[in-house]
Amino acid sequence: MAEAYQLQPNGDSASKPLLELYVKASGIDARRIGADLFCQEFWMELYALYEIGVARVEVKTVNVNSEAFKKNFLGAQPPIMIEEEKSVTYTDNREIEGRIFHLAKEFNVPLFEKDPSVEKRIENLYRNFKLFLRAKVEFDKGKKVPSSVEDISPQIKVHYNRVCEQLSSINELLAERNSRYLLGNSMTEYDCELMPRLHHIRIIGLSLLNFDIPHDFTHLWNYILTAYRTAAFIESCPADQDIIHHYKEQLSLFTNQRETLQSPTKTHTIPDKVLSAIRVKGLAPDVNML
Amino acid sequence: MAEAYQLQPNGDSASKPLLELYVKASGIDARRIGADLFCQEFWMELYALYEIGVARVEVKTVNVNSEAFKKNFLGAQPPIMIEEEKSVTYTDNREIEGRIFHLAKEFNVPLFEKDPSVEKRIENLYRNFKLFLRAKVEFDKGKKVPSSVEDISPQIKVHYNRVCEQLSSINELLAERNSRYLLGNSMTEYDCELMPRLHHIRIIGLSLLNFDIPHDFTHLWNYILTAYRTAAFIESCPADQDIIHHYKEQLSLFTNQRETLQSPTKTHTIPDKVLSAIRVKGLAPDVNML
Repeated sequence: MAEAYQLQPNGDSASKPLLELYVKASGIDARRIGADLFCQEFWMELYALYEIGVARVEVKTVNVNSEAFKKNFLGAQPPIMIEEEKSVTYTDNREIEGRIFHLAKEFNVPLFEKDPSVEKRIENLYRNFKLFLRAKVEFDKGKKVPSSVEDISPQIKVHYNRVCEQLSSINELLAERNSRYLLGNSMTEYDCELMPRLHHIRIIGLSLLNFDIPHDFTHLWNYILTAYRTAAFIESCPADQDIIHHYKEQLSLFTNQRETLQSPTKTHTIPDKVLSAIRVKGLAPDVNML
Repeated sequence: MAEAYQLQPNGDSASKPLLELYVKASGIDARRIGADLFCQEFWMELYALYEIGVARVEVKTVNVNSEAFKKNFLGAQPPIMIEEEKSVTYTDNREIEGRIFHLAKEFNVPLFEKDPSVEKRIENLYRNFKLFLRAKVEFDKGKKVPSSVEDISPQIKVHYNRVCEQLSSINELLAERNSRYLLGNSMTEYDCELMPRLHHIRIIGLSLLNFDIPHDFTHLWNYILTAYRTAAFIESCPADQDIIHHYKEQLSLFTNQRETLQSPTKTHTIPDKVLSAIRVKGLAPDVNML
């Protein structure tokens, strides 16, 4: 029927499921994306499905403290995914992942390929970073600038070493694999997990800890560069200010106007020295063209 | 070595993993359990492992608005599970379930047996109830007592009917199966999901909606009675006042002192008429001995 066809000029796209993802808004401005890691992880996975035409995706930021949000979702917290056509609201990470998993499976998208050795290498990184962060922030209390790594107590050094060792082991893994993403040339759930966490470590390390990912981890930096060139990551990434604000709030640190009044910016570049090392090693061939 | 033996008189129990579960505290009193459904679900699963000696379990209530909590968990929300011996903190429902799943598998506990037909029957019940709840509370705004089902608008009646139809279909399933729990004589994850939700529907139905689970759903009521006789459920169940307070908060309803000042009580009995019907049908043989 011509009329029906006209109403749905793109019959194909109309049959794709529409998935709405509600993500936590920034504490600075409710129209901006907040720094919730699970929200970014699912957004990246959905983006992967959207990119290859498997699903339509809409993302909405929500202020979890607003009355309207509370009433609508009765205590559920973002990430929340809604599939209107099925009248289904997924409020649990297990359910959201379950739905994305089934869609990926149905369309043969290798988003959830398993690799226990990758899983093992990345699983405790963020936890260890949080332990380091908490301990060092406590240690630096009252100081005008965060202390350098040489000056921290042996106890905090233990946390610091653990983070560096694990970053090093991921660097080695990436060197061995020599692939764009953790499992190969396409992004999997492991990348959706690791990329946002590495970015938080970098942004928070620089702003609150006087810490940077060691510059000699060339393969790891190359991987971070890949994140900065992956649409799924860039689109779903909060601004630096929103990431810093999130952690300051949790750590009850004084929030100065630097973050709240600044125009939001996103650090998606890597240090020049590291970039040269990547070029020298012939990684990321497109870097040469810069 | 005798000394080592003396230090660990119960060698077996010392080798069991200790799992600490942090659950959301009640908004009335931070020492009391709050009404978070995921927290109760995991608590019940952990209780099942604890009961048969597979794990040691400790549960702690946390006030998510306290500075101490925020600092310690940096934005993560309960349920949170900690396994100190492994220095692992599980902050994601997928991770918590993954750990419980592996423990259950290791010790052959049939907690995660799959049954797609059960899954299908129970999956939308709570969502449909929330739609009914929100619509009816909005409809009843300004009224002194909630309206009766006869007086609600056709639109809300649709939500109401949907809830009743689904309760009826679960009632039928239970009648067909004729077993203590959904899958048989031992509790599975499906029961840990359904039992707390049915209890919330009952408590909130009575207190805010002028609604009760239809009394002729004898098998369903018998199942609720089973919950009230299941240690894993009773131990992890919040008081009525804490459940009501949770929903009132989310719905921005006036909180009167009835809930906040009352001594906490738990409704773990069922209507007499229903109890008689259960007796007549010869369900739950132990009921006769009351």
